[in-house]
Amino acid sequence: MTQQRITLAHGNGGRFMRELIDEVFARHLNDGQLDTHTDAAHLNLSGDLLFTTDGFTVKPLEFPGGSIGSLAVHGTVNDLAVAGAIPRVLSLNVFIEEGLEFAQLERIVADLARAARDCGVQVVAGDTKVLPHGECSGLYLATSGIGVRATPGVLSLRNIRPGDVLLVNGSVGDHGTAVMLAREQFGLRGDLQSDAASVLPYAQALFDLPGIRFMRDPTRGGLATVAHEIASACGLSVRLSEPAIPVKDPVRAVCEMLGYDPYYLACEGRVVAVVAEDAVDEALARWRGIDGSEPSLIGQLETGAPRVILETELGGQRFLEELEDDPLPRIC
Amino acid sequence: MTQQRITLAHGNGGRFMRELIDEVFARHLNDGQLDTHTDAAHLNLSGDLLFTTDGFTVKPLEFPGGSIGSLAVHGTVNDLAVAGAIPRVLSLNVFIEEGLEFAQLERIVADLARAARDCGVQVVAGDTKVLPHGECSGLYLATSGIGVRATPGVLSLRNIRPGDVLLVNGSVGDHGTAVMLAREQFGLRGDLQSDAASVLPYAQALFDLPGIRFMRDPTRGGLATVAHEIASACGLSVRLSEPAIPVKDPVRAVCEMLGYDPYYLACEGRVVAVVAEDAVDEALARWRGIDGSEPSLIGQLETGAPRVILETELGGQRFLEELEDDPLPRIC
Repeated sequence: MTQQRITLAHGNGGRFMRELIDEVFARHLNDGQLDTHTDAAHLNLSGDLLFTTDGFTVKPLEFPGGSIGSLAVHGTVNDLAVAGAIPRVLSLNVFIEEGLEFAQLERIVADLARAARDCGVQVVAGDTKVLPHGECSGLYLATSGIGVRATPGVLSLRNIRPGDVLLVNGSVGDHGTAVMLAREQFGLRGDLQSDAASVLPYAQALFDLPGIRFMRDPTRGGLATVAHEIASACGLSVRLSEPAIPVKDPVRAVCEMLGYDPYYLACEGRVVAVVAEDAVDEALARWRGIDGSEPSLIGQLETGAPRVILETELGGQRFLEELEDDPLPRIC
Repeated sequence: MTQQRITLAHGNGGRFMRELIDEVFARHLNDGQLDTHTDAAHLNLSGDLLFTTDGFTVKPLEFPGGSIGSLAVHGTVNDLAVAGAIPRVLSLNVFIEEGLEFAQLERIVADLARAARDCGVQVVAGDTKVLPHGECSGLYLATSGIGVRATPGVLSLRNIRPGDVLLVNGSVGDHGTAVMLAREQFGLRGDLQSDAASVLPYAQALFDLPGIRFMRDPTRGGLATVAHEIASACGLSVRLSEPAIPVKDPVRAVCEMLGYDPYYLACEGRVVAVVAEDAVDEALARWRGIDGSEPSLIGQLETGAPRVILETELGGQRFLEELEDDPLPRIC
């Protein structure tokens, strides 16, 4: 590839597009299943299949702990994992801004390919569009994923009962804060890494747990939004314990400085699990067996109006309202 | 929905986003299978599954004969159809520019829903992102689709032999030209309609044809690009007959005026089929039975260097080169 930057001709269906696909995408992603000469990929999957999709517009495209490439894998892998499936194949849509440097595109595709290999998923279908300079700020991605159900029953909000408890596998708000710092628009610096990662090991650890009800990854809108989704779908109150929710010191410091609430900031490698009260010890024990985990019991469901109550350190309480204004766009 | 335009808060995971999803997307697309409260949709599919994806960035968003919404359905439905599958489910990614009018978004989603119903596919998973004003020029879409194979064998470029013939189900270049005229940047007007449509009836008519080798829809890069893909994959020459290729008068007129070649312009409702020579009559007879079709035998494969030869009306010949510069960006 002799050119330094993407041009509109890389999206026109002709020779340059074929070269872009062969030399960047197929080279990194090809493991035998990606056939760039067919209109549709054959799926060698059997069992009970789950299907999901996610779009990615994070800015900047590369940040401490990941890039839009690995994020696009983890986001869709995580949606399948929390639904109780082993992710197997992905499709990939790429929207590239004219002028993007080949070197950066290639780093991002390599990061995406690495994440896919680590998660055991294969990119089997793709499409590329190139947009005129000034649009789509570098790169947008979308991934759709198919997985095979691995839970004995169906994980669903409908399984949740009063008394069930909420667990989280690590600190919240790292991803949102790391991306914010990487933008440098606030004049802040730090060495905080995004938490972006596959949650499959955590989800998989609970697939056969007696008492597992439901899991969700707290991405856009953060922990508070997942808690609201649970409260509103179940018609129950969610009572969260502020001292029990893990928040890293740099996240807390940035939030205090800028007036953000860490409970609304996106995570990209966290999972909230709702389990029966008598299954908590077993669930926490299984999670503690996973390298790097810091699992916590952070709250409980109780009968009452569908709302989210945060019990503070000093014994008071406040309501976490449903998110209205966007605290931080372009985070995923 | 009291607001007139999309705001960033419609993409943040909170209340406005929930309202956008419930009141625009779920209202038009919900037919029982779209559950906006789960992270992944359960697929009730069995058989040999095919999977594909496509992105859509057409400008303007609405044009004579369709919109980016119906295009996003037809594009992915057609990729599955030409691969020999009955399309069954779609996922939908939406990238919306802040400031897009709700009324226009709603028209486009309604057009998408209508196209999906007409094609017998269901949107079972989706994701929405909102981008700051100035990005993504209104709306980009991506759809991934899953279908069930309905051909006795696998349709593939590898099936093609010297002597096989090329058929097309109607005139070429209508979509590209209609979109170009709708942009008004050339000061031209016309009543040409895009050909954007499902090619499933045409593909399906040949699924069990003895002698069917391969099908492809000539989208970006048009007929010439499909001919090149065939020539290069098979190591054969494609000889096309210019008088046999249907091109509508207004398409020819616009191309002459602007210096475009209609064989490179996108179609969105056409299919090129490669069939064995002794299957031609049966294939054409089946296609003639479909309302509105104007099928033609347009060319033949022959041993020789992998290139595309166009025999002109006057008995001369010229080569159709592989597309390099983009004749017309943002066409699909």
